[in-house]
Amino acid sequence: MMLCCPPGKLLPFLMLFGLVTACTPAAGGDAEWRLTDPDDTAILQLDDGTVIIELNPTFAPTTVAQFRRLVREGFYDGQSFYRVIDGFVAQGGDGSDMGIANAEPTIKAEFEREWSDQLAFTSAQKPDLFAPETGFIDGFPAARDLESGTVWLTHCPGTVAMARLDDPNSSSTDFYVVIGQAPRYLDRNLNIFGRVVYGMEIVQRLRRGPSSNGGMITDPEERSVIRSVTIAADLPTDERPSAQVINTDSEDFQATLESRRNRDAEFFHQQPPPVLDVCQIPNGGQLRQ
Amino acid sequence: MMLCCPPGKLLPFLMLFGLVTACTPAAGGDAEWRLTDPDDTAILQLDDGTVIIELNPTFAPTTVAQFRRLVREGFYDGQSFYRVIDGFVAQGGDGSDMGIANAEPTIKAEFEREWSDQLAFTSAQKPDLFAPETGFIDGFPAARDLESGTVWLTHCPGTVAMARLDDPNSSSTDFYVVIGQAPRYLDRNLNIFGRVVYGMEIVQRLRRGPSSNGGMITDPEERSVIRSVTIAADLPTDERPSAQVINTDSEDFQATLESRRNRDAEFFHQQPPPVLDVCQIPNGGQLRQ
Repeated sequence: MMLCCPPGKLLPFLMLFGLVTACTPAAGGDAEWRLTDPDDTAILQLDDGTVIIELNPTFAPTTVAQFRRLVREGFYDGQSFYRVIDGFVAQGGDGSDMGIANAEPTIKAEFEREWSDQLAFTSAQKPDLFAPETGFIDGFPAARDLESGTVWLTHCPGTVAMARLDDPNSSSTDFYVVIGQAPRYLDRNLNIFGRVVYGMEIVQRLRRGPSSNGGMITDPEERSVIRSVTIAADLPTDERPSAQVINTDSEDFQATLESRRNRDAEFFHQQPPPVLDVCQIPNGGQLRQ
Repeated sequence: MMLCCPPGKLLPFLMLFGLVTACTPAAGGDAEWRLTDPDDTAILQLDDGTVIIELNPTFAPTTVAQFRRLVREGFYDGQSFYRVIDGFVAQGGDGSDMGIANAEPTIKAEFEREWSDQLAFTSAQKPDLFAPETGFIDGFPAARDLESGTVWLTHCPGTVAMARLDDPNSSSTDFYVVIGQAPRYLDRNLNIFGRVVYGMEIVQRLRRGPSSNGGMITDPEERSVIRSVTIAADLPTDERPSAQVINTDSEDFQATLESRRNRDAEFFHQQPPPVLDVCQIPNGGQLRQ
């Protein structure tokens, strides 16, 4: 993810893609960062490297509690990504969400919650195509509808959610990571409980399933393996990796949004419309170990 | 890419992600397909496999002509992807667009063209967040503004365009592929001349550059290599791969759009708003050899 400022000599070329506004705080000084909470930091070891997921107990308390417990029991270790559709999602777990039941309890729907002024919402776009308003809450892309008084996390690249069957309360163990253009039509229909904050390029290396088979990889030998999942808090303090992520409540981040909304770089022959796609704003992290 | 219908027994699980409407023609029967024109089919051999790009001379005649000539001269063979930002773009070529000039002519801006009723436009969304209307023309995601009488190709995952400096007429040889959430703010600012119709998962395996360096991979040894680029028409007929792509003018495709716009599967606990993101609609292809 493109987060830090490049060396000055590269700036003219980065303006090529309008990235300067993404990484140069308009208000001057450094962007504000925060470290993810070790209790809310899951470390996936995949064949090609490390992926860090930030969990969100504010929006999905039951899902996060069950995921944490499963991680601690080693449930996911050695399992695999068995359904991987390029440009859409990579789904992993024991395959129970494909109809082979396991003994784990199902999780009630946590698709949205009541709006509260206690939630720090940094607005991005109003209205958005799929919601009255989008923005960020604690680094997570989100949307709200003040008329109905609801707020929810949105499906963006890197979003982590529990798969389910038709029953809205049927998710249990298997999860997916969004690996393509945001499938926003899934918003408010699934338990989003995390986001990849480091290592999306590792997720993108997961082996895809054949399109002729709906992305299913029927031969277990062909699947990319989940070597292990660990909650950072369970590691000794000096061995814990944590991700440094953008503090989306900060004034610097708000200035970044504003400069992306109103692009005035010489590069722009045609001024883009002053709108923001909440899923196209870099808000991930970098590894700190 | 998810294009063919999965075995029936998988349907309930695919409904999980609302994919049924993407792959089951609502009107019954098979979706209509077409083969890409061998003159407009570029075959990239990368370290991890084959990628097929469909060129678009209707929107970018000068760019396509120059790209074809460069391909035939072997210009790209052995070059590399030197600037790769996860979630954004993978840029390849000889690095000339980073300031080291080569002798190739620059290309005049082909960012948009005059609207014509001769263009078969299948509407997707009106209005879209970034344009008055989006849709598809000959398989390519596009947008139009009938008020100003202009039409242009949009930046979506898989879009291929020429990089440039600030001068709108400065692109020449180096190109990028969009590998993340659609950077629609770049629309009408770059020469889009193609789209990946097969092998995006191969593109996703390209080595990323460090975010601390704006995605630049300074050590040439570290870069993913372009082994070769070939125009399909230059191969003997029986050795030509071509991509079978969805005919976006077809009634089947229009029915697909309609069913994605109005999702009535039981899975949807919350009915999504009846809108479409033109970049989130599968419209790629599969290899035919």
